[in-house]
Amino acid sequence: MTELRELNPGGRILMGPGPSDVHPRVLRAMSVPLVGHLDPDFLKIMDETQELLRHVFQTQNRLAIPVSGTGSAGMEACLVNLIEPGDAVVIGVNGVFGERMCDVASRCGAQVSRAEAEWGRVIEPEAFQKAMAGKKAKLVATVHAETSTGAHQPLPDVARLAHEAGALFVVDMVTSLGGAEVQVDAWGIDAAYSGTQKCLSCPPGLAPVTFGPRAVEALKARKTKVQSWYLDLTMVEKYWGPDRTYHHTAPITMNYALREALRLVREEGLEARWARHQLNHRALAAGLDALGIRFWSQEGHRLPMLNAVVIPPGVDDLKVRKALLNDYHIEIGGGLGAGKGKVWRIGLMGESSCRHHVLYFLNALETILAAEKVKFERGAAAAEAAAVYALAIRSARSDPRYA
Amino acid sequence: MTELRELNPGGRILMGPGPSDVHPRVLRAMSVPLVGHLDPDFLKIMDETQELLRHVFQTQNRLAIPVSGTGSAGMEACLVNLIEPGDAVVIGVNGVFGERMCDVASRCGAQVSRAEAEWGRVIEPEAFQKAMAGKKAKLVATVHAETSTGAHQPLPDVARLAHEAGALFVVDMVTSLGGAEVQVDAWGIDAAYSGTQKCLSCPPGLAPVTFGPRAVEALKARKTKVQSWYLDLTMVEKYWGPDRTYHHTAPITMNYALREALRLVREEGLEARWARHQLNHRALAAGLDALGIRFWSQEGHRLPMLNAVVIPPGVDDLKVRKALLNDYHIEIGGGLGAGKGKVWRIGLMGESSCRHHVLYFLNALETILAAEKVKFERGAAAAEAAAVYALAIRSARSDPRYA
Repeated sequence: MTELRELNPGGRILMGPGPSDVHPRVLRAMSVPLVGHLDPDFLKIMDETQELLRHVFQTQNRLAIPVSGTGSAGMEACLVNLIEPGDAVVIGVNGVFGERMCDVASRCGAQVSRAEAEWGRVIEPEAFQKAMAGKKAKLVATVHAETSTGAHQPLPDVARLAHEAGALFVVDMVTSLGGAEVQVDAWGIDAAYSGTQKCLSCPPGLAPVTFGPRAVEALKARKTKVQSWYLDLTMVEKYWGPDRTYHHTAPITMNYALREALRLVREEGLEARWARHQLNHRALAAGLDALGIRFWSQEGHRLPMLNAVVIPPGVDDLKVRKALLNDYHIEIGGGLGAGKGKVWRIGLMGESSCRHHVLYFLNALETILAAEKVKFERGAAAAEAAAVYALAIRSARSDPRYA
Repeated sequence: MTELRELNPGGRILMGPGPSDVHPRVLRAMSVPLVGHLDPDFLKIMDETQELLRHVFQTQNRLAIPVSGTGSAGMEACLVNLIEPGDAVVIGVNGVFGERMCDVASRCGAQVSRAEAEWGRVIEPEAFQKAMAGKKAKLVATVHAETSTGAHQPLPDVARLAHEAGALFVVDMVTSLGGAEVQVDAWGIDAAYSGTQKCLSCPPGLAPVTFGPRAVEALKARKTKVQSWYLDLTMVEKYWGPDRTYHHTAPITMNYALREALRLVREEGLEARWARHQLNHRALAAGLDALGIRFWSQEGHRLPMLNAVVIPPGVDDLKVRKALLNDYHIEIGGGLGAGKGKVWRIGLMGESSCRHHVLYFLNALETILAAEKVKFERGAAAAEAAAVYALAIRSARSDPRYA
């Protein structure tokens, strides 16, 4: 048998599409000894976690829980609980995760209509209107932060259209939650899901999910059983609610981690956290611009935490990413789906969204690209980024958020 | 908003139905910084984990992976991947987890026939034969270690009957894996699933699953898509196999923990580990007998890691369990389903299966029951258990397994 040494993976700077760097306090929380899943101390932790989730989702919804799986399990949880066979649904598709929603919904027996946009662009309200026309859609779903393309989808108009048509509005917030403004209640979102390993900077393994009153009503009005036993919220919510009825054993340690990660989010403050993600994005963008690298995602609708940029012509995708990983210990993401081989996805999520990562990455990329004979002014990338920070620091004199 | 202090749940001695105590090495593994889910270092960890899983399952199956959810997700993964709507299936039912399998299978559109036994008893091969008669069952499924009743189901005869009828044999090993003999290949098991938080002594959050060649063939021969996208093994296996195709982000930290827990299992050795669980069970049983407490589960078919015993007449279930938890920090399990209010479930799983837990628990229980006016000879319980250990230590002179 293979000799198996103690765990010692490489130290990485995680600037890919997630997982992101995890704060030492979160890692430490995971080494706290276990209690049972019905222990009074754990029940208290569950209540606290729900309160923290309501805060980060900006909602008063009673149902705000971590589903026991990764972000994709959150997607599946929302769709299997709200869709019954034969239901018409409208799904926004402008990347891998919109496509994934269509796949999941059709496995639930839904009649799927697509509201589409070119990859990298956001989906116009008209596209949703067109897809909804002539159908009695039960739900309209879209991705807030399309991780495969870096597009930042505006939501309030789509919510309004969905509600006017009597449909529920479901949103994928896997990559946005904790890194960009999210307003579940104010924007009229009926159900949303996320993951822990993006802007919450917690290891992957849980999927925060929230259902508003209309979604809960739809759940209660089902004529058929939810096709997934594991994700059946009619049962899961009895464990998270006052009944405390055993459903499945909660992942105790992952819940410890999530509570600590959310506690860090609350300590920082949501607005300060969104502003931090925005600032680091602007600094990175300024540096990339100096290298002549352009964004794939649509101007004015770029995600701050996921920067999808076009690989410069003639540059070897894999060679650059290998050099970043092996020489600098930096992970960035390659393209996914239509972006494969064509874009890089540079993540600045949660703990990974910080000035020293941006500057270190720009210097590393510059050195690697210089060897690849890409033409640009040496030293300009980090200088341009530093100028953005300097400006922010000057503004900080009058705005404590950047202090 | 509530003030949220640093995480500090009570120190517990976990002697319930899981989670069990976690070894400090496993807790420490969870505080190792994250790498990406496609990082070469993580791919190596995945390969090592699969090798360790094959060892604990005693199988040569290529497909042996941790599903990204708790044990119940493992159950659902096995059933949704193997069942197509309309398939006939036979399920052994003698407790909560057999019932759960029926529920999951019928959500897959299966025609379910039940092979039943009274709760606490094992299911006779004749019951399976009867349930299979006149049907062309696609699979026969049963629970190896029924956590709700403590019954230890013999498997090889049922496997033979299933195969004679051309059916696959699927086994729930959530509570047995790593604590009692399991022989996936030698016993003719086509698919099996488990959980991490029982005898593997890892926190809950992953479900080890293995599929043999016949199960893989059935998976490939499906006419319909697997109804769960998240648990679709036709896609998940491409990530765990040589392709490394991204499906969903693996729960990195939970995988660190599982690898370390399985490394501990391999260091101890499977036979030594099974023997340890058996010895602590015998010592506990001797002590309980001295207190006049009898087992609920059938003699000769009792699980070593889950001792389901009848609550003595006149004794207040909740009062005793609260005293154990509050005064002694010991968690034991109450009854589930038909056992509710009628039995206690005393777990001796993985790290929790040790002499000092057995003796400490017996002394605590004796003190509590004396206050409840149960009649027994004071001091006898721990003495009887100690006698079992003394005998084992004497035998150890000739058998290094008990050293």
